[in-house]
Formats: sequence, C-alpha cells, structure tokens
Amino acid sequence: MALSHKARRASVDALDPSRIVRLEEDAVVLLDQRRLPDEEIELRCSSAAEVAEAIRTLAIRGAPAIGVAAAYGLALAARRGEDLEAAYEVLASSRPTAVNLRWALDEMRGDPTPERARTIHDAEVERCRRMAEHAAGLLTSRARQASPLQVLTHCNTGALATGGYGTALGAIRAAWEQGLVDHVWVGETRPLLQGSRLTAWELESLGIPFAVIADSAAASLMAAGEVDCVLTGADRIAANGDTANKIGTYALAVAAHHHGLPLYVVAPTTTLDLSAAGGADIPIEQRDSGEITRRFAARNPAFDVTPAGLISAIVTEQGVHEPPYAESLTSKVHA
Amino acid sequence: MALSHKARRASVDALDPSRIVRLEEDAVVLLDQRRLPDEEIELRCSSAAEVAEAIRTLAIRGAPAIGVAAAYGLALAARRGEDLEAAYEVLASSRPTAVNLRWALDEMRGDPTPERARTIHDAEVERCRRMAEHAAGLLTSRARQASPLQVLTHCNTGALATGGYGTALGAIRAAWEQGLVDHVWVGETRPLLQGSRLTAWELESLGIPFAVIADSAAASLMAAGEVDCVLTGADRIAANGDTANKIGTYALAVAAHHHGLPLYVVAPTTTLDLSAAGGADIPIEQRDSGEITRRFAARNPAFDVTPAGLISAIVTEQGVHEPPYAESLTSKVHA
Repeated sequence: MALSHKARRASVDALDPSRIVRLEEDAVVLLDQRRLPDEEIELRCSSAAEVAEAIRTLAIRGAPAIGVAAAYGLALAARRGEDLEAAYEVLASSRPTAVNLRWALDEMRGDPTPERARTIHDAEVERCRRMAEHAAGLLTSRARQASPLQVLTHCNTGALATGGYGTALGAIRAAWEQGLVDHVWVGETRPLLQGSRLTAWELESLGIPFAVIADSAAASLMAAGEVDCVLTGADRIAANGDTANKIGTYALAVAAHHHGLPLYVVAPTTTLDLSAAGGADIPIEQRDSGEITRRFAARNPAFDVTPAGLISAIVTEQGVHEPPYAESLTSKVHA
Repeated sequence: MALSHKARRASVDALDPSRIVRLEEDAVVLLDQRRLPDEEIELRCSSAAEVAEAIRTLAIRGAPAIGVAAAYGLALAARRGEDLEAAYEVLASSRPTAVNLRWALDEMRGDPTPERARTIHDAEVERCRRMAEHAAGLLTSRARQASPLQVLTHCNTGALATGGYGTALGAIRAAWEQGLVDHVWVGETRPLLQGSRLTAWELESLGIPFAVIADSAAASLMAAGEVDCVLTGADRIAANGDTANKIGTYALAVAAHHHGLPLYVVAPTTTLDLSAAGGADIPIEQRDSGEITRRFAARNPAFDVTPAGLISAIVTEQGVHEPPYAESLTSKVHA
C-alpha cells in the first residue's frame, strides 16, 4: 500500500450525479452513454416516452440508474400534464430485467414530483456509498492475505450505472482509496462493450490503474494467479440469492468457483425482488441479434442468472449478506 | 435425424483447398481472411517475407493453414532464389504459438519444391478428413443419448484454418452429414471475431444451422441444457495433453467441466509438440492491445492453455486419444 489515502483520493467531477442524469424545467437530461468514451454529449428527453426510449436504447443503463431516470421521467410527465398511467406503463416496460425500474416508479406514484425524484436519486447515491464501505470492509481481510488486490469486474457498475458513485465499481473505488486494491481487470463486456467503453472511462477519470480484457480471457487470468476476487453488480436478485446480471457474469462465477476465488455481488436493496423465489422467476431480456452480428443468425441474451451457490457474499447498503441468502436477505431488508 | 445423408451433403466449392491457399508461378495466393465475410478477396504474396507478413497480420490463420502457407512460402523462396535460411527464419518467427509452422518448414528443408509443399497441403486436408471421421464416431454415442446434438465451438477451425475441410469444424461437418448434429453454437471469438466472421461464413456455405453468441454467453447456454458438447481445435498440444488454443477455450473447458459436458479437442498430429512436457512450456502470443481497445490499456493474450484434465478426448487423424494423454498421445504417434 504505497500510496497514502490522500494521494489515492479520486476525482469526482467527471462523474457528478447531476451530470449523469437530472431533471430540468422541460426535460430529463442525461449523459448519452452510447457515445462514451468518444464523445460526452447530453441527451434531452422531453417526455416520458422519450425517457423510455433513452432507457430502451441504452442511452442510460444500469439497474439503479434506469430507476432514477424513470423517476425523473414520471416527474416530467406530471409536470407536462401527461396521462400518468400511460407514462408509468411506457417507462416500466422499457426494459424487463432490472427490478429497480418498477420500484422507482411505484415510489413515485403517490407523489410524482421533482422533489420526490431527486430524493430517490440522492438516496440511491447514498446507498452506493454505504454499500461501498461495507464491501471495502469485506476486502480488507483478503487484502491482508494478498495485498495489493487484483480485482476483476464486468460490465459497468459505476457512477454511470447508478446515477452516482456505483455498486461494484463504487466498492472498488472505495477499496482503492483505502489502499486495498492495486489493479482492476475490466471485462470488455460484449456485445455492447460497457466495460471497455464505460468502466474504463470511469476508472481513467478516477485515476485507478486498470487493463481491459476480452471477456473470455478472465478464466485464464484466474488460472495464472492474477485475480484475487471478482466484483459485479446485479440487475435483479431473487429471494434465495440467485442473481441476474449482465451476460457473462455466470461464466465468471463458474470460473471463480473453479479457481477458489470469491465472487461478490454489490447491489442496493432496490435490486432485490423478494417476490421472485429464485432465478427461474426472473425474466431475461433477449436483445436484437444485430448487436452480435449484422450478417448471420445470433442469440443475444442480455443477462444470465448466477445461482446463489456461486456467490460468496451479496453486499447491500445494509451490510454484507452471507449464505444462506433466503435468510440473510429477508431478515435484513426493512419491509 | 430428419434429413438423409444425401440431403445433408455439404457444398464444398466455396471452401476448396486451392481457394484458401495455393502456389502460383510467382506468388503464394490466399483468400484474405481479414476481409471475410464482407469481401472475398485474394492476396498475392510475392516473397517469403510477404507470406510471413500475411501470417503475422492474420490474412491467413489457423495452426494447420499457416503451416501450409509457410511451406508454399519456402517453395516460392527457393524458386525465386531467395536465401533459404533467411526465408525459413522470417516464416518460422511470424507467429510463436502454433507448432505446425515450424513442423512444415522443417519438412520442406530437404526438398523446398512446389511438389513437396502441395504434398504437405494435400496431406493436411487428408488428415482433417480422417480426424473428422474419428470425431464423428465419438459423437455417435452422445447423439444416441441426446439426439439431435447441439454442439458449441470456438474460433475458426474449418477449411479456412486448415487449408481445407477443418479440424473441430470438419468434425462438426462430418457429424452433421451423418445426421448426428442438429445445431451449432458459434462463439464470436473476441477480439478478432474468427467465430462470427469465419466460422459463420463457413457454416452458411455448408448449409449447417447455427447461431453466433457472445463468448461469455456459452456458460449460461450450458446451464440451460442447450449444449451437448464442445469441440475446439488446438494450436499446440503438449506431451501430457495440455492444449494451447484460442483465448477463451480454457473458459469453455471450465464451464463444460462444471456442467458435466465433454470438451473434445480435434487437431492433427502436426499440432503435437512432444518436446513440450506441459502447458507451461508453450509460448503464448501476446498481441497488440489495440485489438481490444484503441483508447485504454488492455491485456491481449491470443491463446490460453487448457489442462489435460479438462479435456475429454483428443482426436487426431490417428484416432481418439483418451486420458492419460502422456500415454495415448505418444504411443500412437508414428515417430
């Protein structure tokens, strides 16, 4: 741990929550994540339908961030005098797997105001900071064994994915600031490259050392002893701990298990869906085959399900949940 | 097995060996695999150095095919009166992992003639046909359990990779013609997409049903019961059966093992390197990080090593080698 905490303090300006998504007088304004890292361009969405379209086309993505964007979208719809039931439906149906979307919309139902939406946004960022601290605590013991840690992550789970700070990437950031993390392996995350476009951009902004890899190279890095643990986010967590996350997460979980490495899922309680008993109850979005190849037939599931048995711990803002998750997730969740 | 053998007979014109690589009067002419599937363009290499450059830049790739190309390159060098030692060296050093390259050059040393190179090419295609028949036999018993088979493959191991017919993809082709295979999952094979560009193009030419997937989706297809077995080629096989192959093969092997599915390696004996005791003795090519991302730091190993313990069988033109490979590989190889 060569650097002091002070030297390791990350710069936050590029990743300011209001830059990622905010409500203005006549629009929800968001940083268009499809254009990153080449261009930093704001997209103005002037109706709930335009916000839904931004979510559907991944201008903003990440389970917590699309919940926040949907909340702002419903506030915008209310201000514009749109039919709120129609606005709710178009936003709720924009993507099927992340449960945060419907959670945020339900929160907004009784009070579809800009203030309520901002409260949801602020609370999501605050949850991220708290879960990051819990996760950093979890990494402390591992860092004692193998300091400094080389961690591997997948997709983008940072400020962009959450509207500020991040889940798994927030945990990596907090751990790095505490001198627990030395280097981050970033799975590029095919087909849409959220890793090599978004996570790499965030890590560069934060000054955290990293290298991008082909997703399929992760297992061989584990075999070579170059990975100490895997951290990922989640799009929906069932009551038994089965976790839907970006396609490729399950492959990483299998590989980590094979190499005796821990996989930690870092996600806010807004990602929990206690109405889903297990992974089989989580709908998996199938996206257009053109994201894989424009010329040939392709199968393109956006997510996969990692069974609870392959997850070493699930970190929420409430703390570190350990197996059996059916018990630890439900007992710590405030109903 | 709905289709008759006759109905399932594949078309071979697009994949004719002489179209993939051949020696003309003043050049080695090859189908430029970097341009496929968008354009079918021939590349003329007028010296050993130009052939080496074509190999280095992947205009032709695949362990057996680069051996054949190198043989033609040395014959061209002899005809042109080039310094043969220099020609040997530039060709041998064009890529480090595949052992076929040096094997073919050594075969040419005593007789660097066009006839000898064509004999090497013809023999490689004939080896492919023989190993395909052996592999199809291996699949017969599995097809009885789970007919029709859904097989998964990685990278390109077809006619393009071998100068004709193919190793793992040749085996799939033979098995499909016999009604044993119903559908092929093609890992796109990042970063250079040999799967979604080359294997998909070959399967389309052959009329074999397939779908391309992100490499990281393979494990979740296995979990869903949509994969019956995995077939891959090899770039170098050590005496103990440890196998170097395209990056991502090891991840597939770990996932197949986790799901109780067999992984079969299909490769000619020219891919065996009995001087390498195990995988640690095989040099792994690190390629330019720009293949992964042009903007950020990246790690880009072109190959990984799958330990023998994760390989259910190695099929060569001599037959089906089963563990322990140290015994089965050496005893069946004609010295």
